[in-house]
Amino acid sequence: MREASLQGAGGAAPSTARRDDRAHVLHSWSAIDTLNPTVVAGASGSHFWDEEGRRYIDLSSQLVNVNVGHQHPRLVAAIQAQAATLCTIAPYHANAATSEAARLIAEVAPGDLNRVFFTNGGAEAIENAMRMARLHTGRHKVLAMYRSYHGATAGAITASGDPRRWPAEPGMPGIARFWGPYPYRSAFHARDEREECERALAHLADTIAVEGPHAIAAILMESVVGGNGILVPPDGYLQGVRALCDAHGIVMIADEVMAGFGRCGEWFAIDRWNVVPDLITFAKGVNCGYVPLGGVIISDAIAASFAKRAYPGGLTYAGHPLACAAAVACIGIYREESLIERARALGDTIIGPELRAMQARHPSIGDVRGLGAFWAIELVRDRDTREALVPFNASGDANAPMMQFAAECKRLGAWPLVMGNRLHVVPPLNIEEGTLREGLAIVDEALAVADRFTAN
Amino acid sequence: MREASLQGAGGAAPSTARRDDRAHVLHSWSAIDTLNPTVVAGASGSHFWDEEGRRYIDLSSQLVNVNVGHQHPRLVAAIQAQAATLCTIAPYHANAATSEAARLIAEVAPGDLNRVFFTNGGAEAIENAMRMARLHTGRHKVLAMYRSYHGATAGAITASGDPRRWPAEPGMPGIARFWGPYPYRSAFHARDEREECERALAHLADTIAVEGPHAIAAILMESVVGGNGILVPPDGYLQGVRALCDAHGIVMIADEVMAGFGRCGEWFAIDRWNVVPDLITFAKGVNCGYVPLGGVIISDAIAASFAKRAYPGGLTYAGHPLACAAAVACIGIYREESLIERARALGDTIIGPELRAMQARHPSIGDVRGLGAFWAIELVRDRDTREALVPFNASGDANAPMMQFAAECKRLGAWPLVMGNRLHVVPPLNIEEGTLREGLAIVDEALAVADRFTAN
Repeated sequence: MREASLQGAGGAAPSTARRDDRAHVLHSWSAIDTLNPTVVAGASGSHFWDEEGRRYIDLSSQLVNVNVGHQHPRLVAAIQAQAATLCTIAPYHANAATSEAARLIAEVAPGDLNRVFFTNGGAEAIENAMRMARLHTGRHKVLAMYRSYHGATAGAITASGDPRRWPAEPGMPGIARFWGPYPYRSAFHARDEREECERALAHLADTIAVEGPHAIAAILMESVVGGNGILVPPDGYLQGVRALCDAHGIVMIADEVMAGFGRCGEWFAIDRWNVVPDLITFAKGVNCGYVPLGGVIISDAIAASFAKRAYPGGLTYAGHPLACAAAVACIGIYREESLIERARALGDTIIGPELRAMQARHPSIGDVRGLGAFWAIELVRDRDTREALVPFNASGDANAPMMQFAAECKRLGAWPLVMGNRLHVVPPLNIEEGTLREGLAIVDEALAVADRFTAN
Repeated sequence: MREASLQGAGGAAPSTARRDDRAHVLHSWSAIDTLNPTVVAGASGSHFWDEEGRRYIDLSSQLVNVNVGHQHPRLVAAIQAQAATLCTIAPYHANAATSEAARLIAEVAPGDLNRVFFTNGGAEAIENAMRMARLHTGRHKVLAMYRSYHGATAGAITASGDPRRWPAEPGMPGIARFWGPYPYRSAFHARDEREECERALAHLADTIAVEGPHAIAAILMESVVGGNGILVPPDGYLQGVRALCDAHGIVMIADEVMAGFGRCGEWFAIDRWNVVPDLITFAKGVNCGYVPLGGVIISDAIAASFAKRAYPGGLTYAGHPLACAAAVACIGIYREESLIERARALGDTIIGPELRAMQARHPSIGDVRGLGAFWAIELVRDRDTREALVPFNASGDANAPMMQFAAECKRLGAWPLVMGNRLHVVPPLNIEEGTLREGLAIVDEALAVADRFTAN
C-alpha cells in the first residue's frame, strides 16, 4: 500500500460521507449490504485518493471516461466560466455553448456526419439512434451483437448482448442478435484473423437474410467492443459491415460511447478503418463525464428525414449548456495536447509491448489485445484449453480469483477495471509515462495472484 | 416588444451561434427546417434574453425546471466550488457530495423513502423505478395513465399516455393503461369532483381486476399530471390509489419529476394529500437542471430487496458529484428562502386569483386549475361545449390559434409554455411579485388573440 500525504482524516469512526452513503445511496449494479465503497476524497490527473489518504493510479479512467484525466484545469475552468454565464436552458432554444459543441463534434466526425442530437449519456444516445434509424428507413428490426453493452434503459439494454440485459427482459421488441468477430474465442471455428473476418461477415449476411433485409432498420455495434472484452475487429470487418448495410439500405450505427473521442488513438475508433457509419453514438470522452453528456452524430441523409417532419424524441436537458461548454473545452484539450496521437503512441510503444512482455512471464495471461489506450488481458486457468480464470458471468465464490487479483492491484496502489475474466487497461490518454509504467508494474506484480490459479 | 439594455449585437447577419445551430444541431421534438430557435444569450432570476437583447419574463421555468430561477448565485457558486474539487467519479465509489445529496433528499421525502438511486434525468428515473418494482414484486405489468408523460426512452415513453409515444411504438411490453381523474373532461361522466374521484377509483379497481392483480408490479402516475394538463387529482384520489396498491401488493410509483421539489407548494406534490408512495421519481427541481440529475427515492421495504442481491441497473454518471453538489445547494435554497411556502402562497394569493379573474374577462378560458406555482388555463372555442381551441395533438394550421397566442405573449415580453390547447403558468418559485404580475398582465393582453377564435 502506498501512503499519500494528501487529505484524509483516518481514524476509526466512519466519515459522514460513508455513513450517509451506507444509509441513503443505492449504487449502480450493486447490493447494499455487500458493497463497501471507496469514499473518494479527491483526484488529480491520473490519480485519485480516498478519505484515508490511500492514493491510486487510475488504470480504469473510472468507467473509461476521464480521457483527459481527473480535474483537468482547463476543463474545470471552462465549467466554472459557463456556470457563471448560463447553466441550463430549454432544448428548443439555441445558445452559444451548444452550437459550438455541435460544430466541433461535426468537425471531428467522419464523412457527412454533420448534425448532433444531444442527450445526457450513452444509453439515451442509443435509444435515439435506434429511433432515428427506424423512422428514416420505415423498418423496425435492429440487429445487435452478442457480447456488447449499450446502456441500461429499456431500448439500450435490450440491444445489449450482455448478462446485464437478463433482469430487464422482456425489453423493447425488434432486436435480433448476431455474433461478432472474437478471434481468441471464435464462434466460427476460425483459425486466424482473416478467416474470422470472412466467417463473421458471412454469418452476418446469413442473419440479415433470415431476418429479412427489408425489415432491418439498423445494424448496431460498438466499433471496438468495450466492456465485453476490448474486441478489436479484424481489418476488413467493419468495411464488410458497411458494404452489407449499403447493399440492403440498412443504417449502420457505430456505438462509440466508450471507444470514441481518442480512446483508440483516433477521434472515433471506426476511423482506424476509414469506414463512415450513418450514425455515431457518443458520451464519456466527449467531455470526460465532467458534466453528463451524450448524443448521436447524424449523416446528412438521415438528418434530411427530419428536415420537415419533427424528430419525435427529446429530453429536458438536451444540449445542456454547461455540459456542452465542457465538450468544447475537452475537444480543445484533445487537439492542443495532441491526445489522439498520444493515445496511439501509448498503445504502440508502452501498453501493448509491456502487456505482451507480461504474457511471456505469466501463465495466467491467455490473450493480450487492444489499441490506443484501450487494452485488455484475458486471464485463463490453462493457455492450451483457454479455460477462463472464472466462468462466464461469475459471481460470489466463483469470481474469487478475479476479486483477489483486483484486491492485490488496489493494495499495491493501482485501480483496476475488472470485467469477467479480464483486466481492462484503460488509463487517461494523458497519463505520464512514469505513472503508466508504475501502474503496469503493479499489474505485473499482482498477476502472481492470478498465476496461482493456473494449471501451468 | 420590450427593449433590453443588455448584451446582444443586433444587425443583419446571423450570429455564429445561430449559424452553427442551424447547421449542426437537431433539437428535441423538432423539424430542422421549421424550427427557428431563439438564441439565448443570458438569463438571470425570472428573465432571460436573446442575442438581440429581447428580454422575456420566464413563465415557463424553461421546461418547468428552474424553480429557483436562472443563474441563482448560490447555486452557481456551489457548482463552481464542486468543479474545483471533484467533477466526476465512477458510480461504484462514494463521495461527499453524492452522500450529502442522498441524505438531504431522504430528509425531505415522505415516510420511509430513505434511499436514493441517482440517474441523469427523469426518463432514466422512470426506467429504473419500473425495474425496481418488477424485481421487488416478481410481477411484470405496470399500470400507467392516459394523459401522462414520463420521458422518451423505450420504457418511459411506453408508459407515457401521450401522443409523443406513438412514433416509438411498439415499446417495452407490460404496460396497461387506465384513465385518471380530469373533472373538466371527465372520462366517467361525473358531475363534480367527488363523483369524479369515486368513479376514477372504481375504474382503476376494475382495470386492476381485469389485468390481474397478481400480475401487476406497479401503478405509475404523476402525483399532479404535468405536461398533459396540470390535472390536480380530487381530494381522496391518491389515498384511494394507495389503498388499492396496499390491497393487492402493488408498488405505488409517484412520478414527481415535474411536480416535485416545491413546484406544488410542497416538497413533493403527493405530500398535499399525506400519501406515502413506495417509489418517487424526481429530476428537474432537485437541482433545477443546472447540472443534469434525476433519480428514484426508495422505500425501506423495496431497498431491502436489494440488500443482498445486486440491483441490475446503472449508468456511468449515476451519483454524479457535480450534479449532486448542485442538489445540495438547491435544497438549501428551498429551505433558507422558504420557497416551498412561497410557491403555495403564489398560487393561493396571486396566480390562482389572477387567472380566475381573467376567466371572467376572456371567453377563451374554459378552465383554470392548479396549485402552488403549477397552473394551467385551458382555452376553448366555446365554453358551453368545451370544444378545445385546437384539436387534440394539433399541428400545422390546425394549431394556428395557439401559435398566434404564444407569439403574442412573446411579442409582449413573456415566454409562455404552451401544450395542446393550454397555457401552463409555471414561473420560478422565487419570481418577484411585480414581475409575476407583469407577466400575468401580458397573458391577459395576449388572450385577446385567443378570444377572436371563440364562438361567444
